[in-house]
This record gives sequence, C-alpha cells and structure tokens, in this order.
Amino acid sequence: MTKKQVDTLVIHAHLFTMQGTGVGYIADGAIAVEGSRIVAVDSTEALLSRFESHKTIDAVNCAVLPGLIDAHIHTTCSLLRGVAQDVTNWLMDATMPYGLQMTPAANIAGTRLSVLEGLKAGTTTFGDSESAYPLWGEFFEEIGVRAILSPAFNAFPLEWSEWKEGDIYPFDVKAGRRAMAEAVDFACAWNGAAEGRITTMLGLQAADMVPLEMLREAKEIAQREGLMLHIHVAQGDRETEQIVKRYGKRPIAFLDEIGYLDEQLLAVHLTDATDEEAIQVGKSGASMALCSGAIAIIDGLVPPAHIFRQAGGPVAIGSDQACGNNCCNIFNEMKLTALFNKIKYQDPTIMPAWEVLRMATIEGARAIGLDRKIGSLEVGKEADLILIDLTAPNLSPTLLDPIRNLVPNFVYAASGHEVKSVMVAGKLLVEDYQVLTVNEDAILAEAQAQAQQLEQRVKADSAHQKMVLMEAMAKGKL
Amino acid sequence: MTKKQVDTLVIHAHLFTMQGTGVGYIADGAIAVEGSRIVAVDSTEALLSRFESHKTIDAVNCAVLPGLIDAHIHTTCSLLRGVAQDVTNWLMDATMPYGLQMTPAANIAGTRLSVLEGLKAGTTTFGDSESAYPLWGEFFEEIGVRAILSPAFNAFPLEWSEWKEGDIYPFDVKAGRRAMAEAVDFACAWNGAAEGRITTMLGLQAADMVPLEMLREAKEIAQREGLMLHIHVAQGDRETEQIVKRYGKRPIAFLDEIGYLDEQLLAVHLTDATDEEAIQVGKSGASMALCSGAIAIIDGLVPPAHIFRQAGGPVAIGSDQACGNNCCNIFNEMKLTALFNKIKYQDPTIMPAWEVLRMATIEGARAIGLDRKIGSLEVGKEADLILIDLTAPNLSPTLLDPIRNLVPNFVYAASGHEVKSVMVAGKLLVEDYQVLTVNEDAILAEAQAQAQQLEQRVKADSAHQKMVLMEAMAKGKL
Repeated sequence: MTKKQVDTLVIHAHLFTMQGTGVGYIADGAIAVEGSRIVAVDSTEALLSRFESHKTIDAVNCAVLPGLIDAHIHTTCSLLRGVAQDVTNWLMDATMPYGLQMTPAANIAGTRLSVLEGLKAGTTTFGDSESAYPLWGEFFEEIGVRAILSPAFNAFPLEWSEWKEGDIYPFDVKAGRRAMAEAVDFACAWNGAAEGRITTMLGLQAADMVPLEMLREAKEIAQREGLMLHIHVAQGDRETEQIVKRYGKRPIAFLDEIGYLDEQLLAVHLTDATDEEAIQVGKSGASMALCSGAIAIIDGLVPPAHIFRQAGGPVAIGSDQACGNNCCNIFNEMKLTALFNKIKYQDPTIMPAWEVLRMATIEGARAIGLDRKIGSLEVGKEADLILIDLTAPNLSPTLLDPIRNLVPNFVYAASGHEVKSVMVAGKLLVEDYQVLTVNEDAILAEAQAQAQQLEQRVKADSAHQKMVLMEAMAKGKL
Repeated sequence: MTKKQVDTLVIHAHLFTMQGTGVGYIADGAIAVEGSRIVAVDSTEALLSRFESHKTIDAVNCAVLPGLIDAHIHTTCSLLRGVAQDVTNWLMDATMPYGLQMTPAANIAGTRLSVLEGLKAGTTTFGDSESAYPLWGEFFEEIGVRAILSPAFNAFPLEWSEWKEGDIYPFDVKAGRRAMAEAVDFACAWNGAAEGRITTMLGLQAADMVPLEMLREAKEIAQREGLMLHIHVAQGDRETEQIVKRYGKRPIAFLDEIGYLDEQLLAVHLTDATDEEAIQVGKSGASMALCSGAIAIIDGLVPPAHIFRQAGGPVAIGSDQACGNNCCNIFNEMKLTALFNKIKYQDPTIMPAWEVLRMATIEGARAIGLDRKIGSLEVGKEADLILIDLTAPNLSPTLLDPIRNLVPNFVYAASGHEVKSVMVAGKLLVEDYQVLTVNEDAILAEAQAQAQQLEQRVKADSAHQKMVLMEAMAKGKL
C-alpha cells in the first residue's frame, strides 16, 4: 500500500486528545498534520503504516496535548509585573501610576514579553483585551500564536476633576463613540487575519464604563458583525455600586434586561456575582472567563466558576495581567483554579485535574466560540499542540497502570517550564525549548529598556508618592 | 592594602540578605565565602577592595537569596507522584495500596528524586520525615544539601484485622519501643554528620499513634539528647477523634497536659486545630510547619498559620509529599501559602510576599532551631545561597525604583526553574542549571525503573481494585 505524504508526524506520544468527556488518552499515540490541520489521530503503529512525512517529531517520553487557551489576558501589563500585590485598592493605589505612563512602545514591549512567556509555557491561544495600539495585531501575526484580539473601549472622559468617590462615573459620549468606532474598525479589519489564526471579539470594558445607549449600540454591532462581546462582568463591588446607582439593579439583572445574557457574551471574572447570579448567567448560554490567580491576589476571592459550570455554562481560564497575578501561564492558572475551589468548598474532590485540564483546552475553546477549530486533537481541527517533557524531575516518574499519574501531574506538579515544543496551525513555534519565530533575547532586552524608561516617568510624576507600596519600600520589605 | 584571599566571591547581585525585619536588600551586593561560612556581606565595590578569591561568581542580572528551607517533606513519596489527588480519604483509598508496596530500593529512589527536584528549585535544607532505611543519610551526605533527618516511628501492630473504623487504634508496645529505639539510634548517630550539614530531630509520627507511656519516654529522650520533636499535630479529624476517645480531650489540650508544648516541638500541619488552639501552640514557644499545597489537595483546607504567627510562633514551610501535593518545590509553597491565606481571610494584604519569603528563609530557620546557622546571609552563618536568573521571561522586567518588583515576583511569578546556581555550606551543588554532585540522569532512570516495579506490585495485589481513582481510570479521565 502506498503511504500518503503529510507535512508532519508526531509519534510515540502519551497522547491526550481531549476527545469525548474525559482526556482521550492514547498510549504510544501519533498525529498526522497536513498544512494547518490534523488529518489523522491514532496509535503510532497505525499512522506509520498509513503515512510518510517531511518532518517527524519523536515524542518519546513526552505527553502531547492540545495547546492551552488563555481566554483573558492584558498582554501589555507584563511591563508592570510585580508592582502591585498585597494591597487593597490595587487599581488606584498601586497599578494606576504605572498604567498612566504607558506608551505605544511600552505597550508592544509588554505584549511581546507576555506572549513569549505564555508561548514557552504552552499557551497557543491568547484572548487579548487591550485598547488597540500600533503593532498589536502585527506581532501576533509574526510570532505565530493564535489570538482572539478584543479591542477594548469605554466612554470615560479625560478629565475627572469634579468626580468624587461614590458619584456615578462621568461619561464623554463623543469620545466613547469614537473609541467604540475604532474598536469596531480594528475588530472587523483583523477578524480572520493570518489565515484565520487571528479572530476578534468586541472588547467592551465593562457595563458601568459606557452609557446605556452605547451598550445597546455595541450589542447591535456585535450581532451585525458576528463578534462575541468580551466584557468584564460583575468584576467588583465598585461596578455593582455604579450599576445599582445608575439603573437601580445589580449588574447581572441589568445585563439580562438589556439583552446581553446570551451565547455572544464572554463574561470575565464574575467576582461580585452571587451564586444565584452565576447560575443565571451560566444557564443563559453565556461563557465565563475565570482568572483565579489575579482575583486571589487583587481581591482575595474565588469567583463562582464551580457553580457556573454546574449550571451548564462553559468556563475558560485566563491569566489576566502580570501587574496583579504575576505571570502569564496557564499551568499556574490550572493549579490555582483546582486548589482554590477545593478550599472554597472545603472538598478535595471539587475541580479534579481532568476538569481543569478541559477548561484550559476543549471547554475553554467552547467558551470562546472556537471549539470547532481548536481545543482537542481530532481530525479536521487545527494542529495546535504542545509536547511536555515527562522526564523533568517534577513530572517523574511516569506511572501508567493501575493509575495513570500524568493528568494530575500536569495540573498539580507542572510549572510550564516542561513544555518542550509548541505547534500552532501546523507550524512549530517552539522546538526543544527554542523559540523559532521571534528573537527571545531581543524581546527581553526591549522589555527591560522600556520598563526602565517607564519607571523613570513614574518617578518623575509626584503622584507616585501616594502609592501604597511606597511604605513597604521604605521599610525594606521589597 | 593587601587583599585577603577567600574561597569564593559572589558579586554584582541583587542581594536579599533577609537580615533585619524585612528582606535586607543590597543593590550590586556581594558575599565572601571561606570554607563553609560567609565572611563578608557588602556592596560589590566594598568586597572587591577587600578580597581576592579562588572562584568568583558573577551574579549580574541575578538575585541572590538564602537557600530555601523545606521543613517537612517525606522524600520517598515522589515515587508515588500523582496517584492520589481529587479524592476523599486520600490515605486509605488512594495512597496506601502504593505505600504498602514500597521497598528499600524504592525508598532511596524516591528520596533521590525528591531531593534532586527540590535542590534544582532552590531548596537547600530538607526536613525529611521517614522511617529510617538504608542509604537515607548517606545520600544526603553525597548530594551535599543540608538535612534535618527525622526518623519516624509509631506503635502500630502489623495486624489490624480486628480493628474497626471508629475503634481506638491497637498498639504493639514492644514493636513500638523497638521502632523508637531504632529512631533514637539513627538520630544520635547522624546528628552533626557531614561536618554539621546533617542534623536530626526525633520523628514521632503523631500523638495518636503511640501509647502515652511512649510519648512520655520520647519527650525524655529528646530532652536528654537535645533533639527537637518533629510531630504531625492535629493533622485531621481522625487524630482528634482518637485522642478524644483515648484521653477525653482534644490533641492540643492533651499535648499541653503531657508537657509537649514548648520550644522543642515542631508541630506539623495543625489542620484540625481551632484558632484558639493554634494561638495556644503559637504562644507556647513551639514551631509550626505549614504544608499549604498538600493540605489543600488532601483536605481542601488552609491550616491556621496566619493566626499562629500573630500569636508569636515561627512558621516554616514544607512540601510534604509528592503523592498529595505533587511537587517538592518551595517556590510553589510560597505562592500557595500567600494566596490561600488571602482567600481564607478574603483580604489581599494577608501574608504579603516578604513575609512568605521570610517563612521560607529566616523565620523557617528559627522554626527548626537553625537560625544561628542559616536562614539569612550574614557574617558567620553557613553559606547556603541561591542565584535566581532575573532574565527569565516570567521574572522580567526588573523594576527597581520607585517600586522594586523582585520579591513579589519570587513569590507570585517564579516557579523554581529560574534557580541558576545553588551553594550549600560554601560548596556549589548546582552551577548554571547543572547539578554537580550527583548524576541527574541516573537518578531519573532509577526512579522510573523502581516506579515501574512498584506499580507492578500494586497491580498484582487485588487490593488495588478498591482504589477510588480506578473509576476515573475506567472513565478515561486520567
């Protein structure tokens, strides 16, 4: 029998396809890739009898999994990594003095660093929420990962001098409409770019940050353009207070009233949602993005993802942002998600490893509307996959029978540094720990240079003296 | 001026001495090492003007910290990594069928793997709690880390056939005394071995596992020999039930009554201690070992370390065991400790990064009675230190002024894989990520070979069919 020629064969893997309701394990498994897609998944013996390949990746002593999905990240923020933890009022008293000094050059340096970090740790899809800025899309095109770019907008004015804590936020509708139009333009221009690797959502920052008329317009635009809405929802008590003051009801009830609770919504955080509200959103067809690490550091809270899932809603995982997390690493998020929920319910059986691994792969893909393309290793899907080195000390030994220890070790023992190779859309981006598509050293050097300029600007602005961590600095605790 | 010759100079470091009440940062810091000890700590400029060295370690773009302390670990258990998570009754329904099949060869393979993993992640001191077995001490001597070996004993009989759940445990006093004598012999023989790198504690397994007369004897022996007692205390509701049934009071009250609550006690876990009981132990002069990861996975709980510290007791951190954690990594434990306690108290300011870093260094050293030798980088102390590569993507960029981001990033962003070099007692054990004192590949291969034999023995014993994870295996979830 003549063998069919394919671009790549991955052979001899502990293969976790994530097909079906579990993890879809295949011993000595193999995958055939042609172009950007998977054309066969079976045992190594079966595929070697059917295919020849231009390139063969020997995955002996490796696990092969679908690439991990980071559904909610602010990539620019890695330039602020580590400046805002262990504080109350994280946003205003720690992050903002740095955030105000960001520039387009700082933004792109931060994005490059975050994506480099995530890619090396096995993230292949980045749901990036940023105000669109120069080179944002171009960098994702260059590095080769999959992206769901969500250009974010709000209707805040430049000038807040008359606003007092407790007032409802002022809006500048004209500026807001302009920001929304720019976001829509970006979303439409980049949706489907890079042979479909880059798609978009509309990044409405939060329901308390734009007036009602813009909320209605954004929903209409999203429906017209076929875009999901990537929105922080019930992200904290300040949002709840704003919505209650303005509309007389809590955020979830308000969003329900204006027709936002449906399959088009990716609801980020839900930190301040009650269990009943989480169930309501979970039953509506909407999805949730869960950022365990960030919300623990910023708020000391565990969002209601467990109950959201029990209500039938799909949950994706996100690393949020490095100025309050402090890393862009889905292995970290999987571990924290499993452990925080065990603690929340005082029950070690809650959120077992396999469920969390599904949230980072196939369930996460469903949450962001891409489950027909990614999230599992099956014929017809895009070839987004990672190789994990099982001979790393912290993943050793490999036990297979009667109990297979690999999935628990991915969630509870791995750190992401065991990711040996990464393929997206059939193209190797990382091979034997080397990033192939960008210059890692240049990205690190650029981030350091931009960060030093950033902190000089922060230092030059006397507002920095009010930062709450200045006391810890003065006392020698940092 | 003639320069003094020393063995090693570490220069150009972001130096965290952990002296004083904070983190003791010195910019462009340096350390001079002679023999096993630190002879000077100052700026690089100052030390280069005073010293010449046989070896100079350029720590540019690195942080240098005291080596991390893992105060409570069962090193043999890494051979069972990943076989027991996401279950209730972790011990009996998941771990035990594997534990019963351990052999001396499996034990040492597990110990070698755990210590290799920990060392590469910056752990320099291992508080190992095991029933003494062949080559245990010898391996610690060989690899060169610091160890506090705590030979453990109990008075359980071999035969439990007549015991029913809810009964008090049966004791075999003769066997228990023999086990205790062996533990005492080991502890006395190894205390101060390897030029003082190896010290010992007496590892009484738990107060419910030996009869009262042996508890009294063990305390007398410990006092006579000048050994601390390394004991699981209030580790769960089963212990509490046993102690209440046998003595009519809860574990902490019972230990107080028999004179156990004092500086000689390292109380491990305290999971089932009330806040009042934790305060009582914290005020007594006793220390606590906190195993955040293990207790979250096994019980879904957060032990009362925060309140113990507020009562004045020192807390050390431990990784416990890889069959319920699943890694031997103090960076992991620091992160989980900080985050779990923020969640427990719904307060992001609880357990800030610098406090947790102190628990892993100087406070941990105090908890295990070694703060005059280790835990900070100061003149006269042992030279146990680690270099952390700050150019790792997940630790970049380095921000210094007005906020220094390094300590938060060690706790919230590092995974331990950024540890570049490790020195213990003045001797380099890891240099540029290479382990110098043992053969890493041989340790990994031996662990894998022993693990495969272990799982064959488990499979051959029909008792394995009762393991609770067999269902997850059957359903394709592992």
